[in-house]
Amino acid sequence: MIGKVLIANRGEIAVRIIRACREMGIETVAVYSEADREALHTQLADEAVCIGPAPSSESYLNMQNIISATVISGADAIHPGFGFLSENSRFAELCEQCNITFIGPSSDVIRRLGNKAEARNTMMEAGVPVIPGSKDPVYDVEEGAKIASEVGYPVIVKAALGGGGKGMRVARTPEEFENSFRTAQKETQMAFGDNTMYIEHFVEHPRHIEFQILADEYGNVIHLGERDCSIQRNHQKMIEESPSIALTPELRERMGEAAVKAAKAAHYTNAGTIEFLLEKSGNFYFMEMNTRIQVEHPVTEWVTGIDLVKEQIRIADGRPLSYRQEDVHITGHAIECRINAENPEKNFRPSPGTITDMYLPGGKGVRIDSAIYSGYTVPPYYDSMLAKLIVHAKNRNEAIRKMQSALGEIIIEGIDTNVDYQYEILNNPDFISGNIDIEFIENLGK
Amino acid sequence: MIGKVLIANRGEIAVRIIRACREMGIETVAVYSEADREALHTQLADEAVCIGPAPSSESYLNMQNIISATVISGADAIHPGFGFLSENSRFAELCEQCNITFIGPSSDVIRRLGNKAEARNTMMEAGVPVIPGSKDPVYDVEEGAKIASEVGYPVIVKAALGGGGKGMRVARTPEEFENSFRTAQKETQMAFGDNTMYIEHFVEHPRHIEFQILADEYGNVIHLGERDCSIQRNHQKMIEESPSIALTPELRERMGEAAVKAAKAAHYTNAGTIEFLLEKSGNFYFMEMNTRIQVEHPVTEWVTGIDLVKEQIRIADGRPLSYRQEDVHITGHAIECRINAENPEKNFRPSPGTITDMYLPGGKGVRIDSAIYSGYTVPPYYDSMLAKLIVHAKNRNEAIRKMQSALGEIIIEGIDTNVDYQYEILNNPDFISGNIDIEFIENLGK
Repeated sequence: MIGKVLIANRGEIAVRIIRACREMGIETVAVYSEADREALHTQLADEAVCIGPAPSSESYLNMQNIISATVISGADAIHPGFGFLSENSRFAELCEQCNITFIGPSSDVIRRLGNKAEARNTMMEAGVPVIPGSKDPVYDVEEGAKIASEVGYPVIVKAALGGGGKGMRVARTPEEFENSFRTAQKETQMAFGDNTMYIEHFVEHPRHIEFQILADEYGNVIHLGERDCSIQRNHQKMIEESPSIALTPELRERMGEAAVKAAKAAHYTNAGTIEFLLEKSGNFYFMEMNTRIQVEHPVTEWVTGIDLVKEQIRIADGRPLSYRQEDVHITGHAIECRINAENPEKNFRPSPGTITDMYLPGGKGVRIDSAIYSGYTVPPYYDSMLAKLIVHAKNRNEAIRKMQSALGEIIIEGIDTNVDYQYEILNNPDFISGNIDIEFIENLGK
Repeated sequence: MIGKVLIANRGEIAVRIIRACREMGIETVAVYSEADREALHTQLADEAVCIGPAPSSESYLNMQNIISATVISGADAIHPGFGFLSENSRFAELCEQCNITFIGPSSDVIRRLGNKAEARNTMMEAGVPVIPGSKDPVYDVEEGAKIASEVGYPVIVKAALGGGGKGMRVARTPEEFENSFRTAQKETQMAFGDNTMYIEHFVEHPRHIEFQILADEYGNVIHLGERDCSIQRNHQKMIEESPSIALTPELRERMGEAAVKAAKAAHYTNAGTIEFLLEKSGNFYFMEMNTRIQVEHPVTEWVTGIDLVKEQIRIADGRPLSYRQEDVHITGHAIECRINAENPEKNFRPSPGTITDMYLPGGKGVRIDSAIYSGYTVPPYYDSMLAKLIVHAKNRNEAIRKMQSALGEIIIEGIDTNVDYQYEILNNPDFISGNIDIEFIENLGK
């Protein structure tokens, strides 16, 4: 039985895990860098161990120091949170070797899912849809045209050595193909001295739809519905919601089944997320599987009522899932906004510094996961997320209004934040009508 | 259609109502006393009108000023919150005369339910159980014994002119009756020069169980389950929870039916609460009906998912109930602790003053309704409630642990609070096992 957990993380997720442990009667050990001496997670845990100076490589990524802190404090398990060492198979392996329970899947599973090609093959074999594409290099336009009609238009022609958009062309119809292929290949030849091309189905204006799954050590796998995380900036999610208005019940069922199939094919255990791209057509494609708790897990928690962090700990402790698939019901609608210390007017430049005054909203259907307080100094060394504001209401429209209202109440002084920027998104007609895809933020400026 | 609401209240309930209005797209007008210039409700509303100096009689109870503020600001409705004018039938009548929608029942219903004797008669006629007792005065011990066996032992003998426990005696058996009656009557004669007695069934170690109801103008009445509010000090509730572990599903159904019957008998509209005393035997008795939103409404909101303040506004706007009885499901367990500015070690003496530093917890299953902020000065003129901390979890045990954990995180500096006292109750074995009644706090010191 897990009696004491070391949390190998910082910030709001460390606080989140401390709270879950406390509610389960489990003791907690925080680790902190010298820059995080006054951090909330350092103060809230039952014990706290300094593991080195601020650069993450010397503290939150320092496996040896974290393992030592675990042994010295007598913790029997490590919760890695997200980021840092959470998807590092070597760290998970080290835990296994030291007889410390790693709260997550096995090192083997992390390694195999971390390898993009291997993960793609596993999914293809299991019958989970992946983006169709040429298996082998393509050199010839006629061969290319044949493959293009096999993978389905629109297609994207990509240079094997490409990057930064060079040597890439989209062809929307067979008529366009020859020209696109030749242009891309010529560009590739010019830029890289190589004419090796690949062809892939082009997923146009996709949504980012991910499914939360839970899997125990006895082969039980369930999914907890989806999250729509299409509102991203430079592949960083900004707003997440559940359910997605793009999914019909029938599509949800099909995608959920695919997610469960994916987890089973990977022999997955613990909480995980299967990320899909969803086309307007309703076709969806496996992107990757995240082998850890996600930043956006609270939206799933609120619509299902299931505490994901507690389930993670129970699963790691060898207990069977507390829920069957038929116990999972989606109620209402939840939205999360990430509140970051950054200045949207200066290209989202991070804004560390001291919070001189602060007011965070509350009330019905409002949840805040944060590790900040008035007087807290946001250090410059870590990611800029200050807090997650999560709301829940009967339906999407009410949830949007609640989020507008809650964002409007936030006061954080002394540093710049993206609160006003988030407020603008929440008032954007396309966002409100649900007309969103992963290019939403990019198109905002246009 | 209600387009603008004036909130005739202050503190967290005013903030609660402002949020509900904002989410419904309704404009808000706050009223404030001179002492509340910096209060959160004053700052959060779309408009704010000063209605006089601090003593409530000159501001929050000043009907004329509030009506004037409503007319001047162009609000078409008044939400009275709780306390202050919320159960004042004259105020509701004044609103009716001025063509202002009073968000609550009609003045007539408020008046009739505010009269204890009339309310009791209405309930008796409707078949809602009331505490059995003598209708007429009793002077004679033999006549008294006859009545006592009719109302059922134990009984309490009460002086008509009694007070402060004088002239009151409990008789647990027919054998005890003669002695109890004679002693009480003698005491009454000595103390008040009168020997008029009443006899009532004595409800021993009761729980305070109240049912939330919603009723529209079309005769639809539903109940939203119960709240157990047995943890009280001097008739002031301190902790409330839903559901009550004292109720079997069968008893819940019977009490819920009685509550609906009570509301129908009173021709009730809007949100209301029927308070019962519940005996260990499972017998329950109508105490009174509160014709307003209650402090403890959030626990019901959390287990049902229904927004009571929004429903109040919809009902007052002439719309039918959004829910039928069969739509109401109780999920999990919710507990509320009232956080007051008072010193439990000095007989709960109020502790107004400036909050110099503050940290309130958050995370999954934690809701805070408050109107305080760091730097806020709690004025000495109003009740001492600073905040309501509400938690929700899968079951009562998990909810208790969550509340323990959340109370442990609270920091409020500069004034005294009852946080530690609440923490002790949450760790009391009798509370944890659910072995509570309305004498719980009184017995704590013993």
